[in-house]
Amino acid sequence: MSWTRHFLDRYLRIPSVSAQGTGMREAVALLVETFRELGCEARVIETSGNPVVFAEKKTPGAAKTLLVYNHYDVQPPEPFDEWISPPWVPTERDGKLFARGVADNKANLAVRLGALKSLGDRLPVNLKFTVEGEEEVGSPSLEGFVAKNRALLAADACLWETGGKDEQGRPDIICGVKGILHAEAVAKGPSRDLHSSVGVAVPSPAWSLVHALAGLRAPDGVVTLPGFYDKVRRADAADREALRAMPYDEEARKKLYGIKEFVGGVSGEDLKEALVFKPTININGLMGGYQGKGSKTVLPKEARAKFDVRLVPDQDPVEVEAALRKYLAMFGVELVEVHGYPPARTPVDSAVVKAAVESAREAYGKEPWILPLMPASGPMYVYRALMPCVSFGAGWPGANIHAPNESVQVADLAPAQEHVRRFLQNLAAVVPEAKPTAP
Amino acid sequence: MSWTRHFLDRYLRIPSVSAQGTGMREAVALLVETFRELGCEARVIETSGNPVVFAEKKTPGAAKTLLVYNHYDVQPPEPFDEWISPPWVPTERDGKLFARGVADNKANLAVRLGALKSLGDRLPVNLKFTVEGEEEVGSPSLEGFVAKNRALLAADACLWETGGKDEQGRPDIICGVKGILHAEAVAKGPSRDLHSSVGVAVPSPAWSLVHALAGLRAPDGVVTLPGFYDKVRRADAADREALRAMPYDEEARKKLYGIKEFVGGVSGEDLKEALVFKPTININGLMGGYQGKGSKTVLPKEARAKFDVRLVPDQDPVEVEAALRKYLAMFGVELVEVHGYPPARTPVDSAVVKAAVESAREAYGKEPWILPLMPASGPMYVYRALMPCVSFGAGWPGANIHAPNESVQVADLAPAQEHVRRFLQNLAAVVPEAKPTAP
Repeated sequence: MSWTRHFLDRYLRIPSVSAQGTGMREAVALLVETFRELGCEARVIETSGNPVVFAEKKTPGAAKTLLVYNHYDVQPPEPFDEWISPPWVPTERDGKLFARGVADNKANLAVRLGALKSLGDRLPVNLKFTVEGEEEVGSPSLEGFVAKNRALLAADACLWETGGKDEQGRPDIICGVKGILHAEAVAKGPSRDLHSSVGVAVPSPAWSLVHALAGLRAPDGVVTLPGFYDKVRRADAADREALRAMPYDEEARKKLYGIKEFVGGVSGEDLKEALVFKPTININGLMGGYQGKGSKTVLPKEARAKFDVRLVPDQDPVEVEAALRKYLAMFGVELVEVHGYPPARTPVDSAVVKAAVESAREAYGKEPWILPLMPASGPMYVYRALMPCVSFGAGWPGANIHAPNESVQVADLAPAQEHVRRFLQNLAAVVPEAKPTAP
Repeated sequence: MSWTRHFLDRYLRIPSVSAQGTGMREAVALLVETFRELGCEARVIETSGNPVVFAEKKTPGAAKTLLVYNHYDVQPPEPFDEWISPPWVPTERDGKLFARGVADNKANLAVRLGALKSLGDRLPVNLKFTVEGEEEVGSPSLEGFVAKNRALLAADACLWETGGKDEQGRPDIICGVKGILHAEAVAKGPSRDLHSSVGVAVPSPAWSLVHALAGLRAPDGVVTLPGFYDKVRRADAADREALRAMPYDEEARKKLYGIKEFVGGVSGEDLKEALVFKPTININGLMGGYQGKGSKTVLPKEARAKFDVRLVPDQDPVEVEAALRKYLAMFGVELVEVHGYPPARTPVDSAVVKAAVESAREAYGKEPWILPLMPASGPMYVYRALMPCVSFGAGWPGANIHAPNESVQVADLAPAQEHVRRFLQNLAAVVPEAKPTAP
């Protein structure tokens, strides 16, 4: 593991924050250097945004090719004052390694590279790597990159960038991600802020926004946007079985989140089904009018809500955006800043998933569990259109992804690397599916 | 008018902003000095907040006593960069006098004092003045001040602090003000901000707030808080007549506000009735979650709305607060920062109002119009519990009260002062009503 730890230490010290434009070239340079050290052909492919690092290691006689997807960009570290040790100084404490981006997803690339290093010339498959630099800002260039480089990226399966284990140490095997639509609803009213004494007669954009939002989702969590659920694919028997086997400690989660119950009072299988298979709409931010101390009798000229829509197969973000736009227009509310991507999943009973499961058993000596669809989102659809995708990694429930004091558990790195190594070996033995035509 | 203009110029240069605690003592000192110059006994009465300046001029043989209410505090001047001339430097431009507080309400006190000055020893009534320093922050000490000084304040009628004229130059006679309740609704959710991928299952305070607010007021403007309209007093015949005679240029107002239609599409008598006699709830501010650039997938731990409730007779702010608290609790939303006061009105056909109307005819040579209840709010209830109240002044439709470039029209000062002078004379001839027991 010393090679892996050494690489990870260097990688974590680079403040590669895509949202802030820092550390991009330094991260790319380290990756190219490292891939070449590992015997790969490596190059930097420019895109309309941050470049992608592409690397390839061919294995003479190998029939199978695995494409690995990771991203070298990480979330902004703010707020700095909540970090116990500095975000760009990897620090070991209580068996954990703290740094921004360590769990999402620098340690995962490190164990993938560590597995390659440990296999040396005994690599049983052809390997390709794509490490992009815009995942944390919505991967705006990824679709274009893949469209231009389909031949280069041809492979039998894709190993995605994320994964971890539950509170009991059981590793998860992730078969898909939800899609997402980010958007902002803007309600406009009078041409300037008015004294609220006229509010009995002058239309208020704050009320328009509130009424529009209230009609989007019922208090029990059901989305009431017309047609929203029309294309939601029903869970099949294999999905149901995965759901039943999926661990979810409700009481521990309630305590972690500081809540008394889940939305609509759901629990048990229904709760797991909601998390895994149900789409929803979240309000991320509300803003408008006076926000200072005390009171101000203003009728604001504008009110806004930032929100995200979590999409599941086979919802189409383009259709959902159109439905949202049409619905909001009835309230005079406009939809702006829309961006996002569709969901993607690989069947839980596919050969690649089975190889990941078997490799996890070997590496951890524990039965892994299958997550058919992550509650979170990622641009997997771009790769899923070309090949089956599966994901696993070195994360843990307390990783604080996207938050201060992000960490991995140091003891998790070795089995996570062994998982990758076993997967490369097992993948060589499985028969990959035919290439799918739809995500 | 030269005395009035000279006083007003000195008064406007004092930055007497109660919200910021500036210029309070300077304003008090100027007022005491001026009252004494005018032959009044003047003194400073301390309260739990900023002091009240009390002044009195007794007229031997006069049967009637008029109590004048004004405030020496003004709104904050911010934003400075929108002022064409500095807010604390009274500046004449295009026939208007610009300065913070000139319309609300320093010019109105100036013309009251100017009328006293011009009458000299021919004052036909006893006069009392109360000039408070907390009107712009909700008059928190006024009720206590009046309760402690009832004997001192005894009078037959009260002349309130505000008033002006419409686009056609017709002066208004104001018989009352709406009450107000300021409040903040706070929805709390998880113990910390969460990644929004859990939003399908974790209750969101932003949704709770939106659902709670949406149930408070319908899109057509009708307030749906249970019991809200129960105590609203119906307009009587005299009120109806005043409403019919009240000018309101709908097209000009729509243009001024930059709106296409009024709430619920009302117009004509219904619109005037709404503005004058209907209570409502206004959202002043919405806040919660991420408000920065771009998107952030956060489920915020808290969301808030600042709002104000405009009350009409005989709504009771204490009862409305209780109803709000009970209603919001159903959504797990808490009510905080509640303060305000009840509405107050004097009948439009009372003797004091008639004296104000007759005086306006004499001073302006135009027929005034009667506003039974101002859409705006003020602490008139404190005085109205003791005597009838009426209000008129030197304002105009473009005065920009509470906004940058506040102004009065210079040519309005002389007739406004003459209005006060005539009122003092006419008041001596009318028989005041018996003291009311309810506002």
